[in-house]
This record gives sequence, C-alpha cells and structure tokens, in this order.
Amino acid sequence: MFALFYSLSILASLLFFTPSEKVKDQKPNIILIFADDMAYGDLGVYGAKGWETPNLDQLAEDGVRFTQFYVPHAVCTASRAALLTGTYANRLELYGAIDHSAKHGLNPEETTIAEMLKATGYQTGMVGKWHLGHHTEFLPTNQGFNSYFGLPYSNDMWPNHPEVKGYYPPLPLIEGEKAIAYLEDQRELTSWYTYKSLEFIEKNQGQPFFLYLAHSMPHVPLYTSDKFQGKSAQGAYGDVMMEIDWSVGEIRSKLKELGLDENTLIIFTSDNGPWLSYGGHAGLQAGLREGKGTSWEGGIRVPAIMTWPGKIPAGQIQDQAAMTIDILPTLAKVTNSQLPTLKIDGSDIWPLTQGQNVPLKPYFAYYNKNELQAVIYGKWKLVFPHTYRTIPAGTEMRNDGIPVKYINVKLENPSLFDLAKDRGETTDVSSHNPEILAKLNGFADQARADLGDALTGNEGANNRKAGRIK
Amino acid sequence: MFALFYSLSILASLLFFTPSEKVKDQKPNIILIFADDMAYGDLGVYGAKGWETPNLDQLAEDGVRFTQFYVPHAVCTASRAALLTGTYANRLELYGAIDHSAKHGLNPEETTIAEMLKATGYQTGMVGKWHLGHHTEFLPTNQGFNSYFGLPYSNDMWPNHPEVKGYYPPLPLIEGEKAIAYLEDQRELTSWYTYKSLEFIEKNQGQPFFLYLAHSMPHVPLYTSDKFQGKSAQGAYGDVMMEIDWSVGEIRSKLKELGLDENTLIIFTSDNGPWLSYGGHAGLQAGLREGKGTSWEGGIRVPAIMTWPGKIPAGQIQDQAAMTIDILPTLAKVTNSQLPTLKIDGSDIWPLTQGQNVPLKPYFAYYNKNELQAVIYGKWKLVFPHTYRTIPAGTEMRNDGIPVKYINVKLENPSLFDLAKDRGETTDVSSHNPEILAKLNGFADQARADLGDALTGNEGANNRKAGRIK
Repeated sequence: MFALFYSLSILASLLFFTPSEKVKDQKPNIILIFADDMAYGDLGVYGAKGWETPNLDQLAEDGVRFTQFYVPHAVCTASRAALLTGTYANRLELYGAIDHSAKHGLNPEETTIAEMLKATGYQTGMVGKWHLGHHTEFLPTNQGFNSYFGLPYSNDMWPNHPEVKGYYPPLPLIEGEKAIAYLEDQRELTSWYTYKSLEFIEKNQGQPFFLYLAHSMPHVPLYTSDKFQGKSAQGAYGDVMMEIDWSVGEIRSKLKELGLDENTLIIFTSDNGPWLSYGGHAGLQAGLREGKGTSWEGGIRVPAIMTWPGKIPAGQIQDQAAMTIDILPTLAKVTNSQLPTLKIDGSDIWPLTQGQNVPLKPYFAYYNKNELQAVIYGKWKLVFPHTYRTIPAGTEMRNDGIPVKYINVKLENPSLFDLAKDRGETTDVSSHNPEILAKLNGFADQARADLGDALTGNEGANNRKAGRIK
Repeated sequence: MFALFYSLSILASLLFFTPSEKVKDQKPNIILIFADDMAYGDLGVYGAKGWETPNLDQLAEDGVRFTQFYVPHAVCTASRAALLTGTYANRLELYGAIDHSAKHGLNPEETTIAEMLKATGYQTGMVGKWHLGHHTEFLPTNQGFNSYFGLPYSNDMWPNHPEVKGYYPPLPLIEGEKAIAYLEDQRELTSWYTYKSLEFIEKNQGQPFFLYLAHSMPHVPLYTSDKFQGKSAQGAYGDVMMEIDWSVGEIRSKLKELGLDENTLIIFTSDNGPWLSYGGHAGLQAGLREGKGTSWEGGIRVPAIMTWPGKIPAGQIQDQAAMTIDILPTLAKVTNSQLPTLKIDGSDIWPLTQGQNVPLKPYFAYYNKNELQAVIYGKWKLVFPHTYRTIPAGTEMRNDGIPVKYINVKLENPSLFDLAKDRGETTDVSSHNPEILAKLNGFADQARADLGDALTGNEGANNRKAGRIK
C-alpha cells in the first residue's frame, strides 16, 4: 500500500515537476515548526488515536512525510543544537536539557540556520522554546534571529513543578532579550506563539523569511487555551496536540491569505520522542521501544513532514532514513546559501523530497551525552552496551501530570536489529548477520574517531574548541 | 457643516429605516469597547493630528458619533462602576482609582450590564482592565461575565512605576480568576486583548454575545507591540492610538468574516479625559479645559460612537448630551432585557441613535468622589466652587512618561458656561443668565437631595446599603 502510493507519487513528480531547475527560481520562505517531546505516533497520518490532527495530516498529504526520520540525540538541548547547526551536538559539547542554573549555551561562533539564511538576505524570526542558553549572549537574537518571543528553556522548569516545588525561579516569557512576563500558568502559550508567528509572517511577507516556531507543547506541563480544553477524547495530551494542529492550520491559512503558500517550504518535526514517565501526559509510542532520553527508536524516531506546493510533489511517503541535522544543508541547497565554515554532519536530503529513493549518508550515529549508543545503516541498527532508563513492568501509569519513577537498566551485549521487520527492537539478530554487524561496527569506529565516545574512552578528533562550554 | 450633514443623515434614516420595529427582530451581539484615559480629540473624526485612526473613523461613519458625550466621574474606578451599572458611582460609594491595597470593589449585589444581558440569554465575556475590585468576589466572573482575561486594575500600578518604584506588587494578568502571568513589560497587552476578543467572538458566534473590551491603553505607561512602534508621527501616544485603532479593525474584520457585522452593535468610548500631567504621553484636549480627575470638559467629555449596520443610520453626528450611564438602559431596550431592580440613573438613548434630536434627561451631574462639582442642562453647565488640580502655566511638559507635578487650585465662585459658544469654559456668564442659573441650581439641589454632596454637607437620600464599601 505504501509502496504503491509511493510509486504513484514518484510518477506524479516525474510528470509534473522538474524540481532541480525550479528550486532556485526565487528564494522560498522557510517555516520550521518544532514540537517538544512529540512522539512518532502523535499525528493522524502516523496513526494517532484519541485526537485528530487534520491540518497536520493535510500538510503531510500536500508534501512528503518521512517514516524513518531521526533526531541524533533524544533530549531537548542537544537535539535543538543539532537541528540548528546541522551538527552532532556532542561535537558542540551541548548535552541534556540545560536549566536556569546553566551558564553556558550554544557557542555564538557556531553558524545556525538563521545565520546562514540571514547572510543570504532572509528576515529571520524565532517564536517559542529556545533552550540553547538563556543568558543574553546565547539568546536567539545573538544567534541569527532578528526577533524572538518565547521561553528560554523547558516549560517544566518553573516554580510550579510538581516534584521540586520552589526549585526553579519564575519562568520568563522573553521578547527580544527581555522578560516581558513571568508565567504562572501556560494556557495561552500556544495561542501566543501562534499569533506572534502570524504577525511575523504578515510583517515580512514582502521578502524571503525564515520562521522557526518551536512549540513548548506537548512537553509537560500540558496546557491548552479554553478553546481546546476537553476537545479530544484523550484528555490533556490530545487537547494539546489538537491546539498544535490548529496552530499549523492558522499558519497555512495566513500563507494562503497573503498568497505565500506556493513559495513557502514548511517543515514540521519534533525534538525527541515521548516522555514516557508522564504516562497519559506523554505521546504515543506507536510500537517503538522506549522514549525520550534513550537511543531506542522511541527516543529518536519522530514524525517529519516537508511541504512546498509545486516544488515538493504531494502525497509522498519517504521511507529512507534522514535526520534533523540534514535540514540545514537542505535549506542551504534550496535557498542557495553558503554552508557554515565549521564542519557539519548533515546531508542535503532534497532528493528525498523529490521521490528519489537513494541513501544519502553511510550511517547515522546516536549519542546520549558523549556516549555513542547506536548506529543505523539503512534498516540496520546496532545498539551498544549502555545504561538507559525504563519504567518497570507493572508500574501504574498516571494521567495527572505527575511522573512515575523510572529505573536504570543496562543493555549487556551489542544488539543488532532489523528495523524493517522489527521496528520495536525486540530481537537481536547479530548472530545471523555477521557481515552487517562488522560493517556497523566499522561505522561506529569511524564515529568514535571523529566524534568521540565516552563508552569506549575515545576522545574523538573533531570536537571543536569553538563549541566547548564557556 | 455638521448641521447639514446631520440633517442629511436624518433624512436618510427616515427614507431607509424603520428602526423601532426592527430593533426587536433578533437579539444583537453587543461589543462595548472602552479606552482608558483616551481624550476627546484622540480620534481622526474628532480632530486628532499626528496619528491616524482609520478604523475608528470608519466606525463613526458607519453609525452615530456623539459630540457631547460624558462620563459622570472623570476617574477610572468610578467611571467604570457607573458604566456597568447605569448608576452614578457615588451612589455605590466607589470613588477614585482603587489600587492593589483596596479590599473593596463593586458590590456583587449590583446588577451589571453583563448580568442584565446574561439573564436574557447572552454569552458574556470581558477582556481588559477591570478596576472594580481585584479580590475574587469582585472579579468579572462574579459580576456576570462568563469569561475574563485582563488586568485587575490600572497598568501603572506595577513595580516599574517611575515615581514609586517598588511600591506596587507584580502586575497580574488574570484569566478567569487566576493570575496566569506577572507583567514585566506591556508591549503585547493590546495584541493579547485583541486576540482574546477575536477568540471570544469566534467561540460565541452562534448565539447572542456581549463582549466588554476595556483596553488598558492609552493609559500610561504607554506600550505597543513591535508592529506599531514608531508608526505614528507623534511618538508613543500616537503609536498606542494606532494600535487601538488596529484592534477595532481586527474586530470588525472578524465580524464580517463570520457574517455577524449586521447583527452587532458596537459602542466605543473612553473612561475619562487625558491625564495631562503626562505631557506628550497624554491625549489631545481639543480645546477643552483641563483633563482627567476634574469635572471640567477635558475630564468628562469623551468620544463616543455607536454603530449597528441597518439599525443605526450611518453618517450621523449627534450633538445632544448623553452619558455612559445611559448605555445600560439603552442596551436593555435593544436586547429586550429587564432593567436592574435597584435604581439606575441612566436613560435609554436609543432615540438619539435614530437621528432624533430630543433631550432625554433634565440634567447631568458630575461628581468627584462624593462632591457634586457640576451640573449640565443642554448647552448650559454650572460649575460649583471646588478644588481641582491643574498644571501651572509655564511648566515644561515631558514626553518620556514621567509626570510633571500639578497643583491644587480653587474655583471660588459658581460659574456658568454656555458650552455651545464656549466649549473651553473660559467665560462665566452667570450674571447674564439668572434664570438659567436658578434652573441649574434647582437641578443641583435635586442631585444633592438624591445623591448627596460633600461640598454642601448633604448626605443624600438614595445611596444604597448594597453599594457601600465592604
């Protein structure tokens, strides 16, 4: 079914598009929408049950959606650093999810997507969660964005955190480089992000623009405005997903109203998988193993949609693996921008948006902090011995936003999975595939030599000074 | 010029409308927009220079605008109490502008416009500045409004007040009955109010609704969102007025989009005149004497527009005197609602919206606290000896949001003014008009007997227990 649909869409693309020539006609507007902790199964087109995402489903139908799209790190700060620099975040020494006490951030000497596009004439704006350093020198306005409106870090890093009441300081809502309010409640957040995004689009309609909208939701604590409270059949999480979907609809309506939809590339994806210890306040695993914070598929595989009417053929499903670090070089291609001078790890995946079914990168690496935990080569995934967190079987899952405890367990042996047959990573097939195993171990050695690996004590060659924590 | 225009519009109304029959066809939506400290001269149609208000001008052109429209008290809390109850606020013992330290508010036993309309099937919502008590029992949600989003009191009652830094506590933005944020900056306030209003309209489009949108602006401190910074030729005040005008345009666009414009009565006015000691951060006196806080025309005369396509003939200018307390009984008439059981002071001024040129009330009274300072009878105004504040001649007016000092002066003798000839209240004509003087003194005695007057030691007969400060 997928294959037939896929073939038809390739045919359509061949019949109606000559993309490589058209790409450079004029610089497109770019809207990059990034959800927080949104799971692989959270969109209707990816199988969501309990809520509807008609606008996101339509977005997918109007372009290409990826079935094996990854983040290189299954946690907030590292994932965002990688997205915006096209680089594995351990190369930048940005790990985990930095909180209010952190003094560091993404080194301003790195080149972000915003800086790359600004250099080629784009108006750049960010709305939403940043999480790459909240001190002024690290804020979006000093990383290539002309304007910024949003939260400097995660929305659970606030005084109302149910487990550590009083630990976090008041949560600032920042505009430019200044706190304009401290939040006591987050119900308006998705609305405010959306309206601010619409204002940015309206203001910059006459020139190429890049909007990076990083929703704070569906990260806990879950909040929706009045108009979405109780809308879904699935409680707060479903309501939140429906509001994010509404937001996408508002943005597309605005683009249509302004006549910009045909010249705008929209990319929608997530920073990592679901935060499972929040039970019913986490997203849908869709059969994937584990979630956020792990290098299992549940942590790193996310929905991804790219839509650009007339340039990306509609109705495509792309099964080739790709990663958020590929977005920067892909945008460089479609906007005819200069790539950063510092080394990046992503690849231009424009061909994958054009119905071409070609592997573009030898392998993908998955780091947790500076530990190389897995490599992927096409459908093959090799997971190395490491400690990860899991929720013990039989734990009663809560639906009230209070997390249950997880435990740390160790994967004792290297394990090879055939993701085409075993997306849930249940069966180690290494003993039956010695050549594949050797090949992936070879890739892992390349990664260790280049990027390092604390699990094997390898320091790596190419972590750069510029990226080090200040 | 006005007279000709006026006559033409009456003719038009006679030719094309039979209003009295149509009013009760179906219950109209009501949108009451209330600006804060907005001066008589602040709209284009009222002569504003230095900024444009095209949406407000159009609103006036599509309905009736009043040239002698009053508030009964030239200060925030009292004016709002009067507006919402149709009653002189000294009857309610609500004076001045209550701040964070106040324990009292509008007595919940009073009937507000919202309660009156809710009883007849309206969905009621408030967005903006309340200022009738910030403790839960006094909030809009306990005064007839189904929903509330806004500031509980004035926007200058916050820690960043330039003159009393640290005196006021953090300024809460309230949704329902809960602070959702504390403001550090107010640049998004008019945007947020507007978007929340649009959401209310959208949500309630299928039923009659009453929206009370009380902007915090153009009260100091002046703030606009990015999109209006520097838009006017007149600095921050002009920018703020242009954003309020934008907001009105957004609301009218939404009504048109939803097909509701023909069944919606929009009323736009202000709570009192300009806060003159803020210099260039105050509105335009348009030749009126003094401003906010006084019973001179600059304090009490405000712009007022009422627009209801098909029901209120377009293009009218109404020179008959009217007052905000008249809005409640007028809305009772057009919605076929029960008037409050407690005595009100307003009159149904629907005939004035229909081109009828009939005096509807014998006189208007102007109180400052519980002092009767003036009465008006048509074009005649009698001002009683009282102390009021003024800015000494030669004071250098500032344009930076820091106030200059005013001084208290005393009007020594009762003074009669012919407002038709002398809107600026420069010349006492009492000696030439003894009969008029006697008539107005008679009205004043009626007011004293009914409402009291601290200047003459009269307690009044009809202040009600229910309205007393708790």
